[in-house]
Amino acid sequence: MTSPMRHQLRVGYADTDQGGIVHHSVYFRYLEQARVELLRECGIDYRSLEYDDKFALPVVDAQIKYRRPAQFDDILEIECSVGLLGRASVRFDYRILRGDDLLTEAKIMLACIELPAGKLRSLPPSVREPLKAAMQGS
Amino acid sequence: MTSPMRHQLRVGYADTDQGGIVHHSVYFRYLEQARVELLRECGIDYRSLEYDDKFALPVVDAQIKYRRPAQFDDILEIECSVGLLGRASVRFDYRILRGDDLLTEAKIMLACIELPAGKLRSLPPSVREPLKAAMQGS
Amino acid sequence: MTSPMRHQLRVGYADTDQGGIVHHSVYFRYLEQARVELLRECGIDYRSLEYDDKFALPVVDAQIKYRRPAQFDDILEIECSVGLLGRASVRFDYRILRGDDLLTEAKIMLACIELPAGKLRSLPPSVREPLKAAMQGS
Amino acid sequence: MTSPMRHQLRVGYADTDQGGIVHHSVYFRYLEQARVELLRECGIDYRSLEYDDKFALPVVDAQIKYRRPAQFDDILEIECSVGLLGRASVRFDYRILRGDDLLTEAKIMLACIELPAGKLRSLPPSVREPLKAAMQGS
Repeated sequence: MTSPMRHQLRVGYADTDQGGIVHHSVYFRYLEQARVELLRECGIDYRSLEYDDKFALPVVDAQIKYRRPAQFDDILEIECSVGLLGRASVRFDYRILRGDDLLTEAKIMLACIELPAGKLRSLPPSVREPLKAAMQGS
Repeated sequence: MTSPMRHQLRVGYADTDQGGIVHHSVYFRYLEQARVELLRECGIDYRSLEYDDKFALPVVDAQIKYRRPAQFDDILEIECSVGLLGRASVRFDYRILRGDDLLTEAKIMLACIELPAGKLRSLPPSVREPLKAAMQGS
Repeated sequence: MTSPMRHQLRVGYADTDQGGIVHHSVYFRYLEQARVELLRECGIDYRSLEYDDKFALPVVDAQIKYRRPAQFDDILEIECSVGLLGRASVRFDYRILRGDDLLTEAKIMLACIELPAGKLRSLPPSVREPLKAAMQGS
Repeated sequence: MTSPMRHQLRVGYADTDQGGIVHHSVYFRYLEQARVELLRECGIDYRSLEYDDKFALPVVDAQIKYRRPAQFDDILEIECSVGLLGRASVRFDYRILRGDDLLTEAKIMLACIELPAGKLRSLPPSVREPLKAAMQGS
């Protein structure tokens, strides 16, 4: 991927808090939604990873900077790219934009675990290879 | 139970929306929390129902009236009682109060299903008997 | 509107619970999202109703039947129409479908209130007229 | 405060996802709840900060490590302390425990802003002094 994947969404009323802005916890839902779509674009169906292939990619570390608040009914653009690819982990890097304004930056690290046991395992080639290609822009 | 079970909770900031009140979807989380505690008081551990006994009680019908809004940091009292007890279903009836003010009334119907298949099944005696006793106040 | 407005969305991972299905509280977020889009199709911008016109349409009553569960990554179609139009209230009626399967039916009643006081007021013509037209399919 | 404030809560069913664990976004709600209670213990009523004093403390940066997952019905203990105190910001540091097991560690930075404008402002003495005392354990 020479450029990051972009995912668009609209802020819902339920996503706001009494400060009149999107609650900081809600961005993790937005980022997850963008991540599932990036995986789909890479040919990886996250649903079947869990249901059929019996492994999962839970979040193990998150860093997020809230630069400007998003508000109800805003249309947000989420840029998502593969930042790091480890043996048993992958980090997705994000920027959330409203028009040209950068609202939020985040790095979310996922580990690869077996289901149902939860033991760490290396990323299978069916996941690693497309993510590597996405990272290298090839 | 001669009187309904009472469960107390405090409204979180994340529970509010930009209208400055608790979002209407959040009450279902409050009611569920009260329901789990009522079951516990009746000697029913909902966690082990799902994990060990392999059945579940999903919500199949809900009716709720929002009379007055709850706000951030309010202490709410949830009254919860068994309203109806069917062969394969149970209805819990609720009133949410802030001091003497009635804020919300709700009726939540749950069905009894087998896990993982999801097929309807009759309530097992270990659940039906304590709920019946709770309903009759005996 | 001769037929109900239709709004499509995809179920997020965060929307599920440990039962492997969409949590019953999450549907209210989906219905709200569809409602905001139906209003937009009718020429009503809900954001500016609150920000500029200083009134709001909070939910005062909800009835919902969960017939079949939705699951992660499902594409849902929400049908939304105006069911009742009162002097100071409006009811939206919904059906949530996955392909041809009817998953959920709901009726959500909203009241019209002044901001910031919260006093009930009649629906302004700028809202009532387009909703009436939508209801009558004209 | 010679030791961090401790806040206890029980994991709700709605907090879980289909992986059978608490969804990573939900911890921010838990941490916020603990933070409001720490402020209250310090004599700071966050509700009146926003309503009466017209300033707010939105989250501007968050770092969180998920070491082990929490599950439905778990009783969690949240340790919360003041980690850093700037002119217009404060960082709260957290550890979430289940019994002796450390599940999660987090650092949440808040900025002080004026309402409704949102402009950065220095922490008022009524907030700074008790937080400083809490940090120094005096």
